[in-house]
Amino acid sequence: MGFTEDDRRLLDGPAVAVLTTLFASGEPHSTVMWFRFADDVVRMIAPASALKARHIANDPRVSVVVTDPENPYAYVTVRGQASLVRDDAAARAELRRIAARYIGERADGYVDSLSAEPRVLIEIHATRVSGRHRHPPA
Amino acid sequence: MGFTEDDRRLLDGPAVAVLTTLFASGEPHSTVMWFRFADDVVRMIAPASALKARHIANDPRVSVVVTDPENPYAYVTVRGQASLVRDDAAARAELRRIAARYIGERADGYVDSLSAEPRVLIEIHATRVSGRHRHPPA
Repeated sequence: MGFTEDDRRLLDGPAVAVLTTLFASGEPHSTVMWFRFADDVVRMIAPASALKARHIANDPRVSVVVTDPENPYAYVTVRGQASLVRDDAAARAELRRIAARYIGERADGYVDSLSAEPRVLIEIHATRVSGRHRHPPA
Repeated sequence: MGFTEDDRRLLDGPAVAVLTTLFASGEPHSTVMWFRFADDVVRMIAPASALKARHIANDPRVSVVVTDPENPYAYVTVRGQASLVRDDAAARAELRRIAARYIGERADGYVDSLSAEPRVLIEIHATRVSGRHRHPPA
């Protein structure tokens, strides 16, 4: 049920994640997100006013899918419980680490260019992990 | 709210989709799927016993995300209503078309190799479409 070595290798790579949260109506809402995986926690950042942040405040149940951009037959799906850390400074500090995974040295410039709107840190603890690491069809 | 030309180009390409369905508990369940987009309908195939098929029978609300495998900053997210067509022959005929998008001439051999377990056709009609077609950060 936990993360395998193959799962960890994929989550440590530069793939983006599809995060699904739930409207108050129960309808699913999916968005594409940068993330960082460390200590078995998936971390993402969002503006405090974003739908996904409001959804999580209302219902912490989420799913996350990370697909290998070079091989769609390799992916990790996570069901989990998300929590919000409403600390703008902590969120921006984490965003520097997250952005560095994708844009390297330009991460600080990117974070410095963002609006003053408060950011929240989303921390996702997995309750179920399912990884597939197949090769493309021969 | 409908599909733009950029959305259609992405959906016509060889990207896979992340489909999210809902457990009876309301919890989201996400899987990676082949699909085909035609006549503004997203079509997928699953074994009749698959969780996602049982979920849709219980609650038709789904989301679908298709990300450009060559550019994670280009993606289409769809919220929609899914219906199940419980017609194994129709599902397998559609699966030949779907598989051909991904594995070309080998699609027929692939479909012929499948188990006899009945397949269902999932048809997703969009209620909300959101596309992003950005370039990667410079």
